[in-house]
Amino acid sequence: MNETVRARLAALRKEMEKEGVDYYLIPTSDFHNSEYVNDYFKAREYFSGFTGSNGTLAVWKDSAGLWTDGRYFIQAEKELAGTGITLFRMQEEGVPEIPDFLCEHMKEGQTVGFDGRTMNCQAGCRLEEKLGGKTGLGIRYDLDLAGRAWGERPGLPVHPVMLLPEEISGKGTSEKLREVREKTAEAGAEYLLLSKLDDLMWLLNIRGNDVECNPVALSYGFVTPGEMYFFIQQEEVTEAFREYAGANGIVIKPYGEIMDFLKAYDYASGAGTGKVLLDKRNINFALYKALGGKAEPVEGDNPTEKLKAVKNGTELARMEEVYRKDSAALIRFIYWLKHTVGKEEITEVSAARKLDGLRRELDGFLDLSFPTISAYKENAAMMHYEAVEGNCKKLAGEGMYLVDSGGQYMGGTTDVTRTVVLGEISEEMKRHFTLVAVGMLQLTEAKFLYGCTGRNLDILARQPLWNLGIDYKCGTGHGIGYILNVHEGPQNIRWRYTEEMKEAVLEEGMVLSNEPGVYREGSHGIRTENILVVRKGEKNGDGQFMYFDTLTYVPIDREAIDVRYMQPADRERLNRYHAAVYEKTAEYLTEEERAWLAEATAPV
Amino acid sequence: MNETVRARLAALRKEMEKEGVDYYLIPTSDFHNSEYVNDYFKAREYFSGFTGSNGTLAVWKDSAGLWTDGRYFIQAEKELAGTGITLFRMQEEGVPEIPDFLCEHMKEGQTVGFDGRTMNCQAGCRLEEKLGGKTGLGIRYDLDLAGRAWGERPGLPVHPVMLLPEEISGKGTSEKLREVREKTAEAGAEYLLLSKLDDLMWLLNIRGNDVECNPVALSYGFVTPGEMYFFIQQEEVTEAFREYAGANGIVIKPYGEIMDFLKAYDYASGAGTGKVLLDKRNINFALYKALGGKAEPVEGDNPTEKLKAVKNGTELARMEEVYRKDSAALIRFIYWLKHTVGKEEITEVSAARKLDGLRRELDGFLDLSFPTISAYKENAAMMHYEAVEGNCKKLAGEGMYLVDSGGQYMGGTTDVTRTVVLGEISEEMKRHFTLVAVGMLQLTEAKFLYGCTGRNLDILARQPLWNLGIDYKCGTGHGIGYILNVHEGPQNIRWRYTEEMKEAVLEEGMVLSNEPGVYREGSHGIRTENILVVRKGEKNGDGQFMYFDTLTYVPIDREAIDVRYMQPADRERLNRYHAAVYEKTAEYLTEEERAWLAEATAPV
Repeated sequence: MNETVRARLAALRKEMEKEGVDYYLIPTSDFHNSEYVNDYFKAREYFSGFTGSNGTLAVWKDSAGLWTDGRYFIQAEKELAGTGITLFRMQEEGVPEIPDFLCEHMKEGQTVGFDGRTMNCQAGCRLEEKLGGKTGLGIRYDLDLAGRAWGERPGLPVHPVMLLPEEISGKGTSEKLREVREKTAEAGAEYLLLSKLDDLMWLLNIRGNDVECNPVALSYGFVTPGEMYFFIQQEEVTEAFREYAGANGIVIKPYGEIMDFLKAYDYASGAGTGKVLLDKRNINFALYKALGGKAEPVEGDNPTEKLKAVKNGTELARMEEVYRKDSAALIRFIYWLKHTVGKEEITEVSAARKLDGLRRELDGFLDLSFPTISAYKENAAMMHYEAVEGNCKKLAGEGMYLVDSGGQYMGGTTDVTRTVVLGEISEEMKRHFTLVAVGMLQLTEAKFLYGCTGRNLDILARQPLWNLGIDYKCGTGHGIGYILNVHEGPQNIRWRYTEEMKEAVLEEGMVLSNEPGVYREGSHGIRTENILVVRKGEKNGDGQFMYFDTLTYVPIDREAIDVRYMQPADRERLNRYHAAVYEKTAEYLTEEERAWLAEATAPV
Repeated sequence: MNETVRARLAALRKEMEKEGVDYYLIPTSDFHNSEYVNDYFKAREYFSGFTGSNGTLAVWKDSAGLWTDGRYFIQAEKELAGTGITLFRMQEEGVPEIPDFLCEHMKEGQTVGFDGRTMNCQAGCRLEEKLGGKTGLGIRYDLDLAGRAWGERPGLPVHPVMLLPEEISGKGTSEKLREVREKTAEAGAEYLLLSKLDDLMWLLNIRGNDVECNPVALSYGFVTPGEMYFFIQQEEVTEAFREYAGANGIVIKPYGEIMDFLKAYDYASGAGTGKVLLDKRNINFALYKALGGKAEPVEGDNPTEKLKAVKNGTELARMEEVYRKDSAALIRFIYWLKHTVGKEEITEVSAARKLDGLRRELDGFLDLSFPTISAYKENAAMMHYEAVEGNCKKLAGEGMYLVDSGGQYMGGTTDVTRTVVLGEISEEMKRHFTLVAVGMLQLTEAKFLYGCTGRNLDILARQPLWNLGIDYKCGTGHGIGYILNVHEGPQNIRWRYTEEMKEAVLEEGMVLSNEPGVYREGSHGIRTENILVVRKGEKNGDGQFMYFDTLTYVPIDREAIDVRYMQPADRERLNRYHAAVYEKTAEYLTEEERAWLAEATAPV
């Protein structure tokens, strides 16, 4: 593999030489700053061998570097071994960011190149500004050199879209467009440039299939006070959608025409302000440049983002039902696993396949919401480990097994993690497991004043681990889409934020994950993840209180719970949760499974 | 009183008419954005009757309004009754900020006036910007109309400064100036304009006596790469300080000359950048305007602020000792109170006098650090209640009594609150009291990663109350000075921030209060306040952990503790704290006091 990477890098360096490019950057993104991307866009993986979902590869004459975040340090180290690519651990002390690195290393007359469509505008602008501070450095953002050096590159994906009826979406596009235009005007803009795929799907009440596990269609949108231009591959437009679009004042145009459209558009034709609302974090740099000097960019959040994040009553009701069934499928899987391990051969891959199969049997199943993470023993210490056929662990009757998985259903997107005891485990593992559960449940039962963001609440999940001097190097929670991306903003639960991250007040109807964990390289990984809905509680003279409801109902493995690390309140929380697990899922289970579940959810 | 206020407002309106001013603003500040101010500056109190420490009075032709924050809503309502002044509850829904209010009400051709020296630059700039958005509105910032209408105004205070020896300050001025110049250069500036009094005192190792309870001298500073100009009333300069200043390259100038100095200074004389670092929140608007177009302001924190907030080893060692003695004085007071109430007449005022007297007896006592808050029963629901002779409650053998107090000592500034049971109290009070203690101790024992700010930690103190649907309308903690202001920045513990507030990473050596509370109007007020020092803990692969040490050692009244509201961990925390209370203070107490303390700190 690493010879392959070296050969690919050599091919890329040839293309760089042809264009006179000294440094070439390959971010992870597609043209839409998507977190997961279609194979067509997997240039960074192709040229580095690193398979994580975040990172940027920088290639120069005699070497190359890969920048990625804490979730992937262990994995990246493994995957980069022998490629000659240096790992840059982002946010660690002394590790420069890419613009600083380039500033330090590039000499006068040198040029850095990249495909501006694959870099988000914020990063592009920061790079431009940083390099502009040194004289004689060139930037070219129109170069898809990775594409040129990539002989067997897959084609752009093409799949017809699916139109959601209103009993699934809960709100029509006309109404959504009205709200979006209102917020656009409130932000002081006339136009809205949309590039975020899940925002576009939400707004148009369609779902696509162009990205694995993410039901989105490659597209762009440009909303004016009177019209909405929607750019999508023509082969993806169904008759039903064409009709719906027409009825909602939407003009459909070919996907590839967005740049020319933006360059040619007469921004002065409307109110004449020419102000275009855009979210620099979520449009690509080339798109931003296409606006040229004619439009005046107004930086701000996409109004679609928060409107989408606050789920409506129809969406929440559907999700509740979907989550119960999805939880039952995971319970069935855990039951099977506990009763089968040691009797039949199970590997990480076959276990995932088993679970995926149980989901596929469910009504309304569309796809997985992300590739199942199926990790045994020390593999679970890699937060986003993906087991590979032929090179994965066999499960045995000892240690712990972590499974992080979810489905896309006609009625919701799920995401759940459980760590399952397969046999004997150490006292330390029990302690870690118990404290993860304690933190997860402490956050679950938080009552908080309206106005809190995830930054205020994060410590409730982290505290039991911090008390032990242990941290997990990721956020505690992310937002979750509705039949959409398993990660969505703006809501999240974190204790600190980098510049790219958003911090949002937790609004009624937002859906978030709650997933503390312990990751011990070479030993074990534990994560317990439930999904929560933000609800409005009591309003009194002291303010509007908020709380969470839980959507996920899967037992937390009692075999790894050591009550010595729990306060009575912690035990009560666990018992309350387990009682609800039984109540919400028993009806979907067989008699044997139910009997087992009764034991698995008995009070501690 | 309210007739008096009306007459004073009438006199002010006459001056306004003379100058053609339609709206006149009187902020609470002196010329240095000090939180507490000398009587000379108490114009807002004089013209409104409102005695709180924060608020702005706006006066116009037919009415007037007072803007203040949640700490003072109850008190302001009482004090404003009958004055015709409307209370504007800041940060409540639908309550406009002053600039918005003015924008809405001022008509073309009208003028708003104020004394620019009493308004901080940020507020002045915001006002200017806001009003600039409407045509034909005038602003005059050179008008001390309140001074003109205030016949019997006290004179500017004049007190000689006290020079701190290095065994008290822990660091000489030359060394401090070196650090300050380094940080000024790092901020990209050549000069530093300093107006914050406690920062100036810290830098020059002097203490003054121009503000009640705040050992500061009215002064300004202008730091250049080679010199420091220090503006102070000449009568305040002692021979010792003059010598020290000379030895440290400090040029002393008259206090009143700062504006002319700034107008005349040749900013191009040095490196020629003319860049002056200033903190818009902490210099006044007139000072900012005096820089004119010749200097280029660089906005940033005063480097002195963080350098001062991180206490050095000498300071911390002195504080530890001072806090033990100060704690013992409060224990002596509580002992006396519990044994005397019902036998002798005690009023809120005489109780405060008793406690203040016990502090005065201590070695190194200089002053109180703020006027003692001595509040019985429902008076304690007013967070910053000040009992007045002749109009205060008599203490009896029932209910609870809250005392928030502190001293200035040669060796530290203290601040401590205890709520003391004087006899029978309700179950509700016990519940509230217990949960306040639980939150206070939960925060005290927090372990957290370096990088956390008070925003991350606040919920640890608030959670037990939020769970009951109760909030306290203030921050959980503020920074504390060293022989300086009892409130200092940038550190604090809050769950949300207004624009004026700073959020700072908690650094080793910072000192903060931890003071959750419950305030029930007309019924009771509970606050338990300890002072904490930030310490560095374990550093491992997951990061640098931090924790708090406690400086305050006074029992938390066990008579109001109901263990039904505590988890075993909460009880252990209380017992651990109480054991330390006895250990740290017993040596300063009489045999009877010690015997009582042993009971008061016995395990629950």
